[in-house]
Amino acid sequence: MLPRSRTLSNISVVMMIYHGRLCITETRMKMQAAISHVRADAIGHILRVQSAALKAIHDYMYENEVVQAMPIILSPETDPLNHPHFDASVMYYGQRLHLTKSMIMHKQLSLMNDGVDKIYFMSPNVRLEKGELKETGRHLFEFTQVDIELRDRTKKDFIEFVDGMLLSTFKFVKKECGEDLEALGRDLKLPKLPLRVYESEELSGKYGEHFDMAASERAQDPFWILNFRREFYDREDKERRGYYHNYDVMWPEGYGEALSGGEREWEHSEILRKMDERKTKKEAFHKYLHVTSQGLIPQTVGGGLGIERMVRFLTGQKHIRDVTLFPRVPGEEIAF
Amino acid sequence: MLPRSRTLSNISVVMMIYHGRLCITETRMKMQAAISHVRADAIGHILRVQSAALKAIHDYMYENEVVQAMPIILSPETDPLNHPHFDASVMYYGQRLHLTKSMIMHKQLSLMNDGVDKIYFMSPNVRLEKGELKETGRHLFEFTQVDIELRDRTKKDFIEFVDGMLLSTFKFVKKECGEDLEALGRDLKLPKLPLRVYESEELSGKYGEHFDMAASERAQDPFWILNFRREFYDREDKERRGYYHNYDVMWPEGYGEALSGGEREWEHSEILRKMDERKTKKEAFHKYLHVTSQGLIPQTVGGGLGIERMVRFLTGQKHIRDVTLFPRVPGEEIAF
Repeated sequence: MLPRSRTLSNISVVMMIYHGRLCITETRMKMQAAISHVRADAIGHILRVQSAALKAIHDYMYENEVVQAMPIILSPETDPLNHPHFDASVMYYGQRLHLTKSMIMHKQLSLMNDGVDKIYFMSPNVRLEKGELKETGRHLFEFTQVDIELRDRTKKDFIEFVDGMLLSTFKFVKKECGEDLEALGRDLKLPKLPLRVYESEELSGKYGEHFDMAASERAQDPFWILNFRREFYDREDKERRGYYHNYDVMWPEGYGEALSGGEREWEHSEILRKMDERKTKKEAFHKYLHVTSQGLIPQTVGGGLGIERMVRFLTGQKHIRDVTLFPRVPGEEIAF
Repeated sequence: MLPRSRTLSNISVVMMIYHGRLCITETRMKMQAAISHVRADAIGHILRVQSAALKAIHDYMYENEVVQAMPIILSPETDPLNHPHFDASVMYYGQRLHLTKSMIMHKQLSLMNDGVDKIYFMSPNVRLEKGELKETGRHLFEFTQVDIELRDRTKKDFIEFVDGMLLSTFKFVKKECGEDLEALGRDLKLPKLPLRVYESEELSGKYGEHFDMAASERAQDPFWILNFRREFYDREDKERRGYYHNYDVMWPEGYGEALSGGEREWEHSEILRKMDERKTKKEAFHKYLHVTSQGLIPQTVGGGLGIERMVRFLTGQKHIRDVTLFPRVPGEEIAF
């Protein structure tokens, strides 16, 4: 007979089998749910809207001579981000490479080339977000942004550029996808240009802490909000410390953030000062700082527009999960 | 006085400082080389050719009603690949997620949706290749492919589809980028359709083991090669075992592989048999096999065309490194 500690009572065996079956059943149910998700009726309509929107964006870029470069997935240095998340990296031939959180620094580096003054990337970003963000309806832990940067241009130029991009995208989607929008029950209206521009101070005075979402819920058209304190790379006014030359575009109807960007810091001393202020670890950016220390980073302005968030708004879906074939919702197990 | 073992002789100190300086100098030189690479004169021309080629591809897809879905970067299951490489994965909430090596299985899963019969992804692939591939001139350890899959179509349909895509891309690039091609010293000629199609057996009989490269060196136009023994998912003829309904497109002038693809296996029993044959670990594909076991994967055909390799050919660059702003060459340290 086995010693007592190595035997299992009948009740434990029954419990184990029962528990095992529960797990198998749960896994099967999750898999079936994932299969049903891929096969959902709405997906065809959503993908056609997405394809039209992407085509309109590429056409707009091409017409405006913004060149497209290929995205980077792994890099020794990436965006530090300004909110809590898990890090994601791999080792390759002794070098630690981080999954791209955004291509901000690569965009700036690209524009060191004299022959290129407008660039964009269709850039997949991996941000291993905390599971708490699962229920917001607008967070994925991987998503794609169309990430744009213009050299020797200002906030004003960029706002005009994006206004035009959004209008031409909406127009093309409405023209091409009437049946799809109807099937989805979505009544999409064209925004009036120029889109309205608010100061964050003005909105926070009116709506308090979550002013951006409050304003999004009340709006009928996309709109701009200026001036947020965030990562070191967004330009702070030298004459008016605490004022940042950056912005968000918000979708209306409570759909929340569409685009985020700003004029960029380019002076080494400013970048160092702001890294210190934010307690950013400088050793994580020593290559970038090697370049800025030589004064090589040009003056640029830009921003990134989330594709899945745009498609969620265009198609009027409740959760961003529903515009993706293979959802990557924070904290959720992935089926495929 | 410190024990002898804990002191440093004068000569060692000198050596350490000298060695330290060498390292710093080497690192600085590498950084300066990376900066010069980004700033190279050719880059502007190359990015304009790339942008025109991408626009032509997106337009061709849109005209042919191939919908565009967004790429996946992390997934519990990815392409096993058929050549030696390092694995790349991260953990997130207890789940191991692999960096995409190709979206082959996701393409098949997408086409389970009845409302979608033609799909493509602009898909960044991470393949941590062995450093030996550094010198081939055509390998990057991350790159983007336009990855296409068509339901209820055959090899013949796909060949016709890609022939058309290549011709319209070449035409558009020639029309739009005359000055850039001239600056790059590239005389690009339009291929004659249909592109020639060879059997691998025919070419290997003629040129031996490296028949694909030998044929590429001798060719004036892109061409197809049929029938390669590779991963489990490419369809093997049931009546003629050892014959595979798959293919590569090769660039001419020695530029090597352009596209790789095939008709796909869809029957569970065939997939299992071929996994056994290739000693593929089935537990690494249990989600995929859960779907195939229910007979849900449709009959499809498709392939992936490497963007950077296409741009290298279009612009006539010697090494694929030279068409990227931020080169990811196997085994090479990354600057940015």
